[in-house]
Amino acid sequence: MRTTAAVALEAGKPLEIMEVNLEGPKAGEVLVEIKATGLCHTDEFTRSGDDPEGIFPAILGHEGAGVVIEVGEGVTSLEVGDHVIPLYTPECRECDYCLNPKTNLCQSIRSTQGAGLLPDGSTRFSMLDGTPIHHYMGCSTFANHTVVPEIALAKVRKDAPFDKICYIGCGVTTGIGAVINTAKVEIGSTGIVFGLGGIGLNVIQGLRLAGADQIVGVDLNDDKEAMGRHFGMTDFVNPTKIDGDIVAHLVELTGGGGDYTFDATGNVNVMRQALESAHKGWGESIIIGVAGAGQEIATRPFQLVTGRSWRGTAFGGASGRTDVPKIVDWYMDGKIEIDPMITHKLSLDEINHGFDLMHEGKSIRAVVEF
Amino acid sequence: MRTTAAVALEAGKPLEIMEVNLEGPKAGEVLVEIKATGLCHTDEFTRSGDDPEGIFPAILGHEGAGVVIEVGEGVTSLEVGDHVIPLYTPECRECDYCLNPKTNLCQSIRSTQGAGLLPDGSTRFSMLDGTPIHHYMGCSTFANHTVVPEIALAKVRKDAPFDKICYIGCGVTTGIGAVINTAKVEIGSTGIVFGLGGIGLNVIQGLRLAGADQIVGVDLNDDKEAMGRHFGMTDFVNPTKIDGDIVAHLVELTGGGGDYTFDATGNVNVMRQALESAHKGWGESIIIGVAGAGQEIATRPFQLVTGRSWRGTAFGGASGRTDVPKIVDWYMDGKIEIDPMITHKLSLDEINHGFDLMHEGKSIRAVVEF
Ligand SMILES: NC(=O)c1ccc[n+]([C@@H]2O[C@H](COP(=O)([O-])OP(=O)(O)OC[C@H]3O[C@@H](n4cnc5c(N)ncnc54)[C@H](O)[C@@H]3O)[C@@H](O)[C@H]2O)c1
Ligand SMILES: NC(=O)c1ccc[n+]([C@@H]2O[C@H](COP(=O)([O-])OP(=O)(O)OC[C@H]3O[C@@H](n4cnc5c(N)ncnc54)[C@H](O)[C@@H]3O)[C@@H](O)[C@H]2O)c1
Repeated sequence: MRTTAAVALEAGKPLEIMEVNLEGPKAGEVLVEIKATGLCHTDEFTRSGDDPEGIFPAILGHEGAGVVIEVGEGVTSLEVGDHVIPLYTPECRECDYCLNPKTNLCQSIRSTQGAGLLPDGSTRFSMLDGTPIHHYMGCSTFANHTVVPEIALAKVRKDAPFDKICYIGCGVTTGIGAVINTAKVEIGSTGIVFGLGGIGLNVIQGLRLAGADQIVGVDLNDDKEAMGRHFGMTDFVNPTKIDGDIVAHLVELTGGGGDYTFDATGNVNVMRQALESAHKGWGESIIIGVAGAGQEIATRPFQLVTGRSWRGTAFGGASGRTDVPKIVDWYMDGKIEIDPMITHKLSLDEINHGFDLMHEGKSIRAVVEF
Repeated sequence: MRTTAAVALEAGKPLEIMEVNLEGPKAGEVLVEIKATGLCHTDEFTRSGDDPEGIFPAILGHEGAGVVIEVGEGVTSLEVGDHVIPLYTPECRECDYCLNPKTNLCQSIRSTQGAGLLPDGSTRFSMLDGTPIHHYMGCSTFANHTVVPEIALAKVRKDAPFDKICYIGCGVTTGIGAVINTAKVEIGSTGIVFGLGGIGLNVIQGLRLAGADQIVGVDLNDDKEAMGRHFGMTDFVNPTKIDGDIVAHLVELTGGGGDYTFDATGNVNVMRQALESAHKGWGESIIIGVAGAGQEIATRPFQLVTGRSWRGTAFGGASGRTDVPKIVDWYMDGKIEIDPMITHKLSLDEINHGFDLMHEGKSIRAVVEF
């Protein structure tokens, strides 16, 4: 078949909207009509050429929602008409990683996924001249139709709006999951969140959901304060507007440091601040942000010997097929909010404008609707 | 009263054996006759002048065992004749830290302890000319008699030999505790231990006690292999004798990395190797070693985002008054071994020779008996 997609032809170039060929699903694969997709920093990291592992041409996008159009041979958990969210972290429920409750990093299709291929080592997308187009994070949601392995699709309820729940495919789950799956925050805790963007706001609402008492948000941009408070932030700190050291300020503000601190900026210096503002004795600091290629984090080992832990999270520690449908329910039940974070709606033709909004810090989430 | 002590008069000078004055115990304090004391790297770190926080003159030593001679006003948990192990990490059972099960870092007397003083802000030791001599880590076990706060004494059974259980005051508890309290290693785990000295060997026997399946020891010195195997090590790796990268070698040897890895060298580069040889998805790396002043650890945040945790431990996460008596029982019951690690016995006069043995890598533990 043919479908319309925003194609990343070369690193650093705007995406090009074009017709592409899409082969039907092979065994274990599913053809999905994408109804909506969010634009995430990770897409932009690859598009811009900053990601040393970027592969081109490719169809980017990994934060989508849609409907099953056709299932390949042997697919048993999904049928035509099911509503689904593609998962860049699949859940095969059979590999050593899926069988270990400590991790969500299913490795079953890792190598082909990283190479921009489906599990059989080929692509389903191609240019009209036949040139293969790579998949991206196993999702490629910047296309009106895409083919995804069955193990990388979460089946969700049919009454949930695509233009909101697509965000659960990455940002919402990453932020809330960092709190509930990775940190396992207890009621009454103190949390500190660095960076109040699309991820950080979800960390904040995750902390509220987990019953944290004090939720401190840290951002260089004062415009982020109102939204932070809307999602449950109790204290706002702009590091450029305080006297002295941000770590000392936060330790003072929280009466000893955060029980849990989160980096949602991707800046390695902020990651260090997050660790060092965790409480002595038991504070845990969780890295969510993705740092630039080759950058390193550092601290004195004494910070760890005196009881702080340094950890990280990918996709919020969520096992997608199991956890994503629950988060969709939480949204539908009003336990969490998504609507105020979807600040911009675009058509596929306007997708490059969505990246501009991201750079200008004007959007929390821009969503493309097909 | 007067007692004999090895006094650190100045940074970098050998200890001097001399008579000193010792005042009796004040309220909440206990006078202990030290029967035996181990020599630990931390003592040497201070003696040598490498520790920027070293205070002189002082009576060092923090790994002792002895008998209660006199109790001060209000002391209720100890009486004359009790056998005790002084604790450099006290356990008041009342501060926010003691009441939090996630940490053992009792803060009740932290500030005076760090200043080389007893909780009332003064010293009990002085030179014969009246000059005060500082306490050290609240213990000062390099004296035949010492005064210690009640909350910093673990009461232990009377049939346990002082010249062995003194080692439980630091090395044994630090190593075994890192495994059972900090890492909480599960049966069947894979552990990697960097540095097979007095701490590392106890990590190894801790891993054996916890039921680990594979216990890899890493040391630059081949002479450490035999002792490592004696305590339960299943594989030995000398980084200077392998082809290529030590991390890749260890990941291969363990089928993916250690579930738990431990630095017991104090070298910040080794701390990084320990983290990076922890298993993707769930591996935890525990820093035990104490790094040189100002040194920093570093890694790429991706190591943490893909599921590794970086942690540390002080005194093996043990709450001394509660846990140390149990470890003494384990020794007496044959669940753990100490005797082969006490490689040298010295008199107090020979204490400086003990530090020479440490530098030459000839001793695991040298113990001074009074
Ligand atoms: N680990 C994962 O699974 C995962 C998933 C998705 C995204 N991410 C990463 O999370 C990070 C955040 O993503 P986002 O979409 O929220 O980005 P964003 O740009 O929307 O938000 C980042 C926020 O950080 C603030 N900030 C920048 N520098 C700061 C500093 N020095 N101190 C305090 N605040 C500062 C900015 O003002 C902005 O509000 C990115 O690095 C992204 O790649 C990680
Ligand atoms: N965290 C705590 O509560 C605590 C308590 C006591 C001691 N310590 C620290 O633990 C560390 C170890 O103490 P120890 O008494 O066992 O020391 P040690 O000198 O007896 O043993 C260190 C071992 O590490 C080996 N080693 C050195 N460099 C190495 C390298 N690059 N790779 C592999 N092995 C290497 C040495 O050959 C030696 O066998 C010290 O830093 C000490 O200060 C920490």
